[in-house]
Amino acid sequence: MLWISSWLCAFCSVLQGEKERKPNQRDRQAQKSGQLFSGLLALNVVFLGSAFISSMIFNHVAITLADVWILLSILKVLCLCWIIYYLLGTSRQPHAVLYRDTHAGPVWIRGKSCFSSSSHAFLFPPSAWKIQKFFPSPFCSSRCGLMLTIATNLLLWLLAVTNDSIHMEIESQLPRYRMLTISLLIAAFLSLHPGNETDSCTCPNTTTCKVFQKGYILLYPFNTEYCLICCSVLYVMWKNVGRRISHHHIAHVKPKFKLQGVVFGPLLGAAAVIIGICVFMMYQIQATGSAPNYQVFVLYYSYYIVLLPLMCVVAVIGTIIHTLEKRELDTLKNPTRSLDVVLLMGAALGQIAMSYFSIVAIVATNPRDMLNSLILSYSVLLIFQYITQNIFIIDGLQRQPYVAAEAQHTTHAGQLSAEFRRVSLSYIHTYSHLSWKRKALKEISFFLVLCNIILWIMPTFGAHPVFENGLQKSFYGYSTWFAIVNFGLPLSVFYRMHSVGGLLEVYVSA
Amino acid sequence: MLWISSWLCAFCSVLQGEKERKPNQRDRQAQKSGQLFSGLLALNVVFLGSAFISSMIFNHVAITLADVWILLSILKVLCLCWIIYYLLGTSRQPHAVLYRDTHAGPVWIRGKSCFSSSSHAFLFPPSAWKIQKFFPSPFCSSRCGLMLTIATNLLLWLLAVTNDSIHMEIESQLPRYRMLTISLLIAAFLSLHPGNETDSCTCPNTTTCKVFQKGYILLYPFNTEYCLICCSVLYVMWKNVGRRISHHHIAHVKPKFKLQGVVFGPLLGAAAVIIGICVFMMYQIQATGSAPNYQVFVLYYSYYIVLLPLMCVVAVIGTIIHTLEKRELDTLKNPTRSLDVVLLMGAALGQIAMSYFSIVAIVATNPRDMLNSLILSYSVLLIFQYITQNIFIIDGLQRQPYVAAEAQHTTHAGQLSAEFRRVSLSYIHTYSHLSWKRKALKEISFFLVLCNIILWIMPTFGAHPVFENGLQKSFYGYSTWFAIVNFGLPLSVFYRMHSVGGLLEVYVSA
Repeated sequence: MLWISSWLCAFCSVLQGEKERKPNQRDRQAQKSGQLFSGLLALNVVFLGSAFISSMIFNHVAITLADVWILLSILKVLCLCWIIYYLLGTSRQPHAVLYRDTHAGPVWIRGKSCFSSSSHAFLFPPSAWKIQKFFPSPFCSSRCGLMLTIATNLLLWLLAVTNDSIHMEIESQLPRYRMLTISLLIAAFLSLHPGNETDSCTCPNTTTCKVFQKGYILLYPFNTEYCLICCSVLYVMWKNVGRRISHHHIAHVKPKFKLQGVVFGPLLGAAAVIIGICVFMMYQIQATGSAPNYQVFVLYYSYYIVLLPLMCVVAVIGTIIHTLEKRELDTLKNPTRSLDVVLLMGAALGQIAMSYFSIVAIVATNPRDMLNSLILSYSVLLIFQYITQNIFIIDGLQRQPYVAAEAQHTTHAGQLSAEFRRVSLSYIHTYSHLSWKRKALKEISFFLVLCNIILWIMPTFGAHPVFENGLQKSFYGYSTWFAIVNFGLPLSVFYRMHSVGGLLEVYVSA
Repeated sequence: MLWISSWLCAFCSVLQGEKERKPNQRDRQAQKSGQLFSGLLALNVVFLGSAFISSMIFNHVAITLADVWILLSILKVLCLCWIIYYLLGTSRQPHAVLYRDTHAGPVWIRGKSCFSSSSHAFLFPPSAWKIQKFFPSPFCSSRCGLMLTIATNLLLWLLAVTNDSIHMEIESQLPRYRMLTISLLIAAFLSLHPGNETDSCTCPNTTTCKVFQKGYILLYPFNTEYCLICCSVLYVMWKNVGRRISHHHIAHVKPKFKLQGVVFGPLLGAAAVIIGICVFMMYQIQATGSAPNYQVFVLYYSYYIVLLPLMCVVAVIGTIIHTLEKRELDTLKNPTRSLDVVLLMGAALGQIAMSYFSIVAIVATNPRDMLNSLILSYSVLLIFQYITQNIFIIDGLQRQPYVAAEAQHTTHAGQLSAEFRRVSLSYIHTYSHLSWKRKALKEISFFLVLCNIILWIMPTFGAHPVFENGLQKSFYGYSTWFAIVNFGLPLSVFYRMHSVGGLLEVYVSA
């Protein structure tokens, strides 16, 4: 399939290459057809895989987990072959990878993604185009390989989320047999046993097994997040294939992460994290002991109701400071930033949908209970928090980093040597007194980073009151609410992680 | 909500307006924040409405159809107010609407959408910016109004699709009481009776009632399509708010729709349509009489299995001709075209998902039946047909129209008067002998237009073998397959209608 698709888009490129077109025009056309074909390849793989996974869930006699694993293994092997082929291809050429996309990925994974494309632009200059007329074009194979890897990662994520949901479902129905069912599911998952035979497989009572079992549960959320992060980095690489880099872009000096002059943000944030962990522990102890009771829900929601308005106010202040600042907009084309914005907005949809569904359920049943009023306020506040935080992050990402603005002034003043400029920049950055606006922005973004980390920890490692409080479940019916939560919860967990990346970006560039 | 959002983005614009920025920079920033705020407004309205509609479906005691209608009526009144305000605002100024986006909307609705934005650009030049500092900016109110109208249309579409699905569900379970149940649902729908009280309301046995009843059923699909088309035109208008138009763009001469020198396409297409209508009638007669039997399914699928490969081959030939042609790519920025491409790909997902689910179901159960082999081939062929047709249309949309290319040459040759140029162009267009490539492209696109019309008619007016044949239903379970079909079918119907528009575009520009 990879080769068919590669060949198809190579065929189109060759047909177009026969014409005496301007090189620019030809590149553009090849790029368009390459993106179209590789996109179609990914689409088909994703749909085939989704159909397999859905069949496994709804008819596990006909399609077993083993079948799904066979499909995924084939895809993984194909991806691996492509990666090896690509690495061999680039390692043989000393100048294979000339540029790195400094924007690719958030701060914590920066520098991992390189211009796979630019390599090819140097391996195959326009004059050499006709030599490889009947072989699949390198751009095409890059694009198709990347898209296949993206599709595989998406399917792995889907499978992981599905498994997590099934475990959540069994757990919520049988709270007393929690550990047993988890161990059964994990055993089934690890040993490739078909889903319907899990009853016959239990974890023996040894310490090693228990360590692996608990470790697996703790590592599980990281696994799902890893798949999504891979997808976004691969998508940026895919967008970068064939992209011509401007010199302005390369010279861009990226500021580094430093913790100076920032006091209130870390302090307040640390307090929020510590209180949050206490609340989370109490919730979890109650939840594992028996069905969670009234007090623990009140505690959990109260924590949110205190924290969320604070986050909203802080984000609004940050947005106002952003608009008061004189920093120019960064108008360079930047696939990473566009993707960041789309992911922030897209991932927010999950929680916003859940909140609106909760609001309608509570308002329609109209209960005069304190817990219900708490849930109502919590849902409304969450919507405001998502919106204000998104506006703050998007606004921040679109500004030029402060250092870059200074660097531009320096460059315009005269052509100093690169070394001298770097030293002077670092001097300016380290010893200058930060203006109150920049200080405030740094405080705000650091506080929000810590808040988002605790709001990520709580749903990721087990607290799902939205499912356990029973209100929405009884309103919409078990399976409908389960479907809504299954759509919303993984997205909201991803949102928290992704917004931490965005906020760090805002922190660094302020 | 509209005013809050308007005010919010006006506030941000004002804050940004205070700075001594370059006008370009300020425009860009105002545009960004306007798009962000109006997008958030639409997002919230859509989620609130979806929560209402879902609650109505899953808990129709707490939220009734009347509640949903009240919400939608409020939204409609708001949209109406905004439209009146906008029309009054533009009608008072003689030069309010200077430009029309010649690209907006497909051929059949061309010219309806105008640059709402350009009007404001002339009503409020930058020097007048500060006068209306404390009133909502006109750009913002345009954007928010448009987004509110889009959201309302989306919700109307969702409600219509939901109603249609409920009627389909009841129908499929009770084929003998088909007309009765439809009349009950329509009565409930028209008279705002809550969904759970429909049993008490039947249509009296008069001719007028029956005419309305049947007419309503026939007009229903047009109603749903209308909402989606409104959404796409409004979206293009929204993208156009604040867009500066280049003179090159305005001078663009659009070719007209003419039927000359095209023979085989219309003939073959007409044959496909006539045979299709016969098959459809036989299917419907069987389906209304009793449960559809084996022969009628074989007939239905055989028709598709003959037609689809023909369409695939023709689309592939068209794509090859496109790549052989010397026409330049149209590289001007064009929101309508980007939207067309996104809609084509997005709407195709519905059918592709259904096909993959069918394929997995058939392959997993592994039956040796003729009907099942037919369904398998049908599903595989549909995927190929969607992909090849999408490639053909997208490739065609990205080329410059032939006439425009000629017009450019004319313009370059000398600055003739506009009138003379138009006359000579029309002469060239009418009397020139079309080259074989252009002829072939016209034949192909005309044939595909007719094929898509018949493939639109069949599912729209009642033939749903994908639900009635029972194979997938028994594999995935009733409710899962029902959900998949509910996602896929409205999209596939929209795809057929939208691809007719795209193909007409390709026909005209070839």
